[in-house]
Amino acid sequence: MSKIKVGIVGYGNLGKGAELALKHNPDFQLVGIFTRRDVSQIDSNSNIIHISKILEYKDKIDVMILCGGSAKDLPKQCPVLVNYFNTVDSYDNHENIPEYFEIVDKMAKQSNKVSLISAGWDPGLFSMNRLLAQAVFPKGANYTFWGKGVSQGHSDAIKRIKGVKDAVQYTIPSKEAIEKIRSGEKPKLDNGERHKRICYVVPNDRKSMDRIEKEIKSMPNYFLEYDTTVHFISEEELKINHSKMSHGGFVICTDTTKNNNKQRMEFSLSLESNPEFTSAVVVAFARAVYKMSLEGKKGAFTVFDIPLAYLSPKSGEELRKELL
Amino acid sequence: MSKIKVGIVGYGNLGKGAELALKHNPDFQLVGIFTRRDVSQIDSNSNIIHISKILEYKDKIDVMILCGGSAKDLPKQCPVLVNYFNTVDSYDNHENIPEYFEIVDKMAKQSNKVSLISAGWDPGLFSMNRLLAQAVFPKGANYTFWGKGVSQGHSDAIKRIKGVKDAVQYTIPSKEAIEKIRSGEKPKLDNGERHKRICYVVPNDRKSMDRIEKEIKSMPNYFLEYDTTVHFISEEELKINHSKMSHGGFVICTDTTKNNNKQRMEFSLSLESNPEFTSAVVVAFARAVYKMSLEGKKGAFTVFDIPLAYLSPKSGEELRKELL
Repeated sequence: MSKIKVGIVGYGNLGKGAELALKHNPDFQLVGIFTRRDVSQIDSNSNIIHISKILEYKDKIDVMILCGGSAKDLPKQCPVLVNYFNTVDSYDNHENIPEYFEIVDKMAKQSNKVSLISAGWDPGLFSMNRLLAQAVFPKGANYTFWGKGVSQGHSDAIKRIKGVKDAVQYTIPSKEAIEKIRSGEKPKLDNGERHKRICYVVPNDRKSMDRIEKEIKSMPNYFLEYDTTVHFISEEELKINHSKMSHGGFVICTDTTKNNNKQRMEFSLSLESNPEFTSAVVVAFARAVYKMSLEGKKGAFTVFDIPLAYLSPKSGEELRKELL
Repeated sequence: MSKIKVGIVGYGNLGKGAELALKHNPDFQLVGIFTRRDVSQIDSNSNIIHISKILEYKDKIDVMILCGGSAKDLPKQCPVLVNYFNTVDSYDNHENIPEYFEIVDKMAKQSNKVSLISAGWDPGLFSMNRLLAQAVFPKGANYTFWGKGVSQGHSDAIKRIKGVKDAVQYTIPSKEAIEKIRSGEKPKLDNGERHKRICYVVPNDRKSMDRIEKEIKSMPNYFLEYDTTVHFISEEELKINHSKMSHGGFVICTDTTKNNNKQRMEFSLSLESNPEFTSAVVVAFARAVYKMSLEGKKGAFTVFDIPLAYLSPKSGEELRKELL
């Protein structure tokens, strides 16, 4: 079988993660990485290409892996690029997914391309487990917890406070809530009851620490509704201990069947590099996009539409023998 | 949408579990439960039908849920019934799955039926997670642990020992092995290193206890290679504390990406009723069989071939909005 020829659009954390993941998947060939930046300034062994030349590659790439941000890049890039390429992305703005799907679906159907959207871990693998939970336990309850992990949005909110030099915020799933659910209870819990927040803050000077802590803890939506802890640390300590882009979480579902039998299904991730994991998932789904395009499929798809065998380089026969 | 008309073949633990699961899934209609036993002797609110009349239902049932045993029932029943019905089963003899698949596939293609085999939790949901693990972590390691749970085969082996009145054997995943793997190590571990065995035995008399314990612990393949503990208890205690058909387990996979970033993905089940869970999974996959048959698909399939959306009664639009 000839290799699956792919391109990467965007060379931030996700793009670099995809470049790394492709090295571990010998059935792929990375044709090039497309970037808006000055190509001559980028240090990489891959073929770095300015994004203005991307259409020159329209017959040379089987799947384009879109690694731009969900806020500004993907809503602009995907509906255009899908006119020329099969695509896969990890669009993660949950609220806008239905709208994004409709736009991409329309374009992909016109161009006879396959576009798989929102293929990361949430949305992505976590969504798959939520679906599985509902299908197997139609009367059960399912809960999603995030963390322990760094929330960029919350870290940035702290950094905007006067007197803060740098900050990292961790979202921590509440152990009490998890234990309650694991024991079979089905409590109603909002985000604030399911999660705690721990902030590591580098202050400009020691005397503003009280004010900063107070400002953090009273910030509505971000911290006010949560059990929030603030630790002041040095710049060095922040760099040494809090520079990994760790994340993770759980999807837990429980049900009680006949005779009060408690049943529990749990899917969890513990990641020291969130972007490297997300892009490894996206690369596996790029394989599915390729297979679907060979079958003549067209339109937008999500992780719900993909048979798992499509994620693997192995044949059905091998999968049944080795993994079933 | 009209209801999915299903039948159940076999009214043991699995068949009863399927009957229960169908009650929680209002898009199904249970037409009848087919049994080899004397129909007049069976206590059930469902329509119990002798299996000799099953062909009378060949145009009245969309999917037949096969709940017989994997050792003797399914290899005989499925290749015959698939001539007349779409089927789903939880065939769990891992070693013989490829052969079983080939036989069923051939018959199903001749009769234009869909037959989904091995749709429980192992094989089934665990297999799906092993595939996912390999696809996302091609250089990673993945491990399957079973338990804590009752192993019928091992319980029966103890019961065959002279002087044993009754016995229940639990397979217990080794905490040390799990912790080692969770910490990111990739040890080579055989079944005996991953699992312990705890036996609850009711002896006929107290004086043969030493001999029974010795015989259990020296039984090759079953106990000799394992860390085995034997507890002697009374018949009453066995009934009260060890009559649930509990089971569960984990699929854990780990990988180390760039800069020594540790990544971990874990899927686990904790079940107080193994057959009730297995049959709830089978019922969800029966929905997939129905959808595939409407599409004109034919042949044998496994859990690897099914888009997850097919397991849900919800539309693609609803799924994207609520669960993605």
